Amino acid sequence: MSNLIERWGRFEFSCSGPKVENPFQDAQLTARFWQGEQSFEVKGFYDGDNNYRVRFMPPTVGVWQFQTDGSHAELQNHTGKFEVGEPSVENHGPVEVAHMWHFAYADGKPYKPIGTTCYVWTHQSAELQAQTLKSLEASPFNKLRMCVFPKFYDWNRVEPALYPFEGEAPNKWNYDRFNPAFFQHLETQIDALLALGIECDLILFHPYDDGHWGFDRMAPEVDDAYLCYITARLSAFRNVWWSLANEYDFMEEKKPEDWDRFFHIVKENDPFNHLCSIHNGFVLYDHNKPWVSHASIQNGSAVTDAARAVILRDAYRKPIVYDEVVYEGDVPRRWGNLSGEEMVHRFWEGTIAGTYVGHGETFDRPDVILWWSKGGTLHGESPARLGFLLKVLEDGPAEGLEPIDKWQNPQYAGQASEYYLVYLGANTPSEWKFSLPKARLSDGMEFEAEILDTWNMTVTPVEGTFRTKRRNMYWFEDEARRSIKLSGNPWMALRLRRVGERVEHKEEFVKSLV
Amino acid sequence: MSNLIERWGRFEFSCSGPKVENPFQDAQLTARFWQGEQSFEVKGFYDGDNNYRVRFMPPTVGVWQFQTDGSHAELQNHTGKFEVGEPSVENHGPVEVAHMWHFAYADGKPYKPIGTTCYVWTHQSAELQAQTLKSLEASPFNKLRMCVFPKFYDWNRVEPALYPFEGEAPNKWNYDRFNPAFFQHLETQIDALLALGIECDLILFHPYDDGHWGFDRMAPEVDDAYLCYITARLSAFRNVWWSLANEYDFMEEKKPEDWDRFFHIVKENDPFNHLCSIHNGFVLYDHNKPWVSHASIQNGSAVTDAARAVILRDAYRKPIVYDEVVYEGDVPRRWGNLSGEEMVHRFWEGTIAGTYVGHGETFDRPDVILWWSKGGTLHGESPARLGFLLKVLEDGPAEGLEPIDKWQNPQYAGQASEYYLVYLGANTPSEWKFSLPKARLSDGMEFEAEILDTWNMTVTPVEGTFRTKRRNMYWFEDEARRSIKLSGNPWMALRLRRVGERVEHKEEFVKSLV
Repeated sequence: MSNLIERWGRFEFSCSGPKVENPFQDAQLTARFWQGEQSFEVKGFYDGDNNYRVRFMPPTVGVWQFQTDGSHAELQNHTGKFEVGEPSVENHGPVEVAHMWHFAYADGKPYKPIGTTCYVWTHQSAELQAQTLKSLEASPFNKLRMCVFPKFYDWNRVEPALYPFEGEAPNKWNYDRFNPAFFQHLETQIDALLALGIECDLILFHPYDDGHWGFDRMAPEVDDAYLCYITARLSAFRNVWWSLANEYDFMEEKKPEDWDRFFHIVKENDPFNHLCSIHNGFVLYDHNKPWVSHASIQNGSAVTDAARAVILRDAYRKPIVYDEVVYEGDVPRRWGNLSGEEMVHRFWEGTIAGTYVGHGETFDRPDVILWWSKGGTLHGESPARLGFLLKVLEDGPAEGLEPIDKWQNPQYAGQASEYYLVYLGANTPSEWKFSLPKARLSDGMEFEAEILDTWNMTVTPVEGTFRTKRRNMYWFEDEARRSIKLSGNPWMALRLRRVGERVEHKEEFVKSLV
Repeated sequence: MSNLIERWGRFEFSCSGPKVENPFQDAQLTARFWQGEQSFEVKGFYDGDNNYRVRFMPPTVGVWQFQTDGSHAELQNHTGKFEVGEPSVENHGPVEVAHMWHFAYADGKPYKPIGTTCYVWTHQSAELQAQTLKSLEASPFNKLRMCVFPKFYDWNRVEPALYPFEGEAPNKWNYDRFNPAFFQHLETQIDALLALGIECDLILFHPYDDGHWGFDRMAPEVDDAYLCYITARLSAFRNVWWSLANEYDFMEEKKPEDWDRFFHIVKENDPFNHLCSIHNGFVLYDHNKPWVSHASIQNGSAVTDAARAVILRDAYRKPIVYDEVVYEGDVPRRWGNLSGEEMVHRFWEGTIAGTYVGHGETFDRPDVILWWSKGGTLHGESPARLGFLLKVLEDGPAEGLEPIDKWQNPQYAGQASEYYLVYLGANTPSEWKFSLPKARLSDGMEFEAEILDTWNMTVTPVEGTFRTKRRNMYWFEDEARRSIKLSGNPWMALRLRRVGERVEHKEEFVKSLV
């Protein structure tokens, strides 16, 4: 027992292999890892320099054993054991779906995604990559959408330092041979994100190539080999989420059934069942398919209004991440010139709908470094406010925010009778009358209230408490009909928390609202 | 060849059967119908008085032959042939899905549903049923949602004249024996709807029984036998749509997998593949499942805003029928007190989203006859305006209305570059600047315009024509930047039709909007 690996950390076995013509294709390494009844079959990969590797993310503490198998004697029957210890304090395991619509780390800690987007930051200069990591560290973001492949598009015409295949740029590739250095670099940066506590929402295909390099139009067998290779390399990284594609439906060379096949390959080759989704252009993938863990959605319109945003939640009954909702910035495209206020507002509307929203930033700068693709430095006004939102979410109910009365009063979210967020958006009332939709309420429940200014990032406690009294068939109010005075500014929210012991509810919540 | 049946009409074979203890269970009749290569296996049913029947809806003209089979000699080897003639002028065949999001009759004629709801009209007095048919005849409605079983609910406490099973009301049923008279009556009324050109959206289960009769909580084998029986009786009725349930998720005695099983039974037993869906309370069924032909949705909130309504269209990629959107009326329930204006507005918002909307009416009258459940007489202001909308739809593109620019300009519907409806809703502008999102447009296209007052039901042609000129990256305007003067009333729409020959479009529509 040579290594001490932590739970959800990464164990790696490596060995040299046989002399073969093409080690990416002509030799295979696999390994079985086991502990008691638990057993995982894990695929290895060729990493250049005659090194074969296999990686494992141990899901439990204690002693794990392994034995390799392979296509050649050199790869077979390597055995070993290693002890897995408790995770370090920052390690909560991979993120999983929790409470149907939400997320939690494997150790149960709730995970509230406040994601951003730097599509091709790993393809920029070393200095710029370092700057991006520095910016992320100072930001509230805990998820990053990023592409494996480089991007050839407006504001993105730079050739990267590394390519995923052997060959000659821009488009003479030997698709039979991967470039291990490319993937090693990608891994270094995914680990750098991990060190910052950031989930890596990794985009496996995208259309912004347009045949320049041709990674958007590889042969089916190359696509499949690429998926096998990258899942073998990265499945043991606990902060990886698979995003099959960005705007998959804009990849005209692919057919709908190709995407189903890609999902199958990823699911079959990922022993650790990472979160897995696919992001749309104009045509939604069927996120009800069982291999989709959560819906990754482009739709800026939906999150301008919680009553819009909630609709996909109901359609899919999975976590909804609106991770492309148009960007904060000033480029002359209608997808890239939101104000900071509007970006933050969209996060709040999505949040109140019980869904999650993603950030991006497109300021047209002299250096042509737009955060949205290249990373670098954040210039917008929204990130600080998204940090405030994250704090609100982290202080909120572990089970997540649920719409309280989705069709009639979409501005109420929380856990009925225990916790409410009421978001007032662009409205500027001078007071808010204490009033709650009836779900799970009864007379005499006591609440304390705070006023949240989501733009100025303040929390103002309201003096005294409020006691519920039924007013009519659908509403409870304060028994003294008290209101809360407001500043008259937009972007305000109320936070109401029940005073006293939490009550368990067994009745059917949904019927209580009819 | 004794009968002349029209295409999509109904052929019925009947014969007497063997002496058995329970003819509903102990004897089975089936028949094969064929014409050339076409062949259908059709199940028969016992109709009382020692009559067994099997019904067939011929999909093509010409000579059809049949041969029966069955559990007993008396039911076996009856043979015959019959000639099927051209359909009569009012017979366009059953309604099917067309152009992904829309409907058409089997002969290709577009079908634009403007549906209403009389849940249990067939369970009322004979006089009231006659009145309901009279009201429907004078109305614009071409689809009716109605339940097989009676309803026990607020404003509905009357025992019906007929029950579906033998036994004793309210709840001592012999679930092994159907009551043929009940189903014969139902068929008479479905045929009465057919004579009025009305599709029957037949609700097979519903929760508004609450155990009073117990039809909401029958044993699984009774549910299954009921579905087999009713599909055997009704599959040859060309105006039947199967609605597995109303508010299926409020039926607490059923599990999610029961509904999948019910779908399978209906699909297996319906040789003619009628439209088939299921209607939700608070929890949507997965309408992406392949056996769901269209999404039958309860959601009043979604159709207050085309940008909401379009979201489920994108999620399901099937026709969306929002057939419960809260009712026009004045009952003290928030689901039943819409103004006529708001009901009509919801139809228009849904329409502009490329979806369909359903009507219902709940006026609290001294006679306790609410159209929504009992039928009778229409009292609301919306039906006439829905007739106007139907005329607009029938005069519109056969392929249906598509959102033109769904995320940025949801008020535009039509067929890009050929036909536009622009709905202004509650807004009351004094003019409308001729402006169109760029999809499929080029300079110099000529349009004629009309002003539609959706409430006052007027169509006002605008003098002259408009010629397109590109103004910026996303918009075309009139080359002279002309506007259209409006009345300043709410509920206005513009209708724009291109002058000249229609152009075929091969380019990818979706990408042209980015």
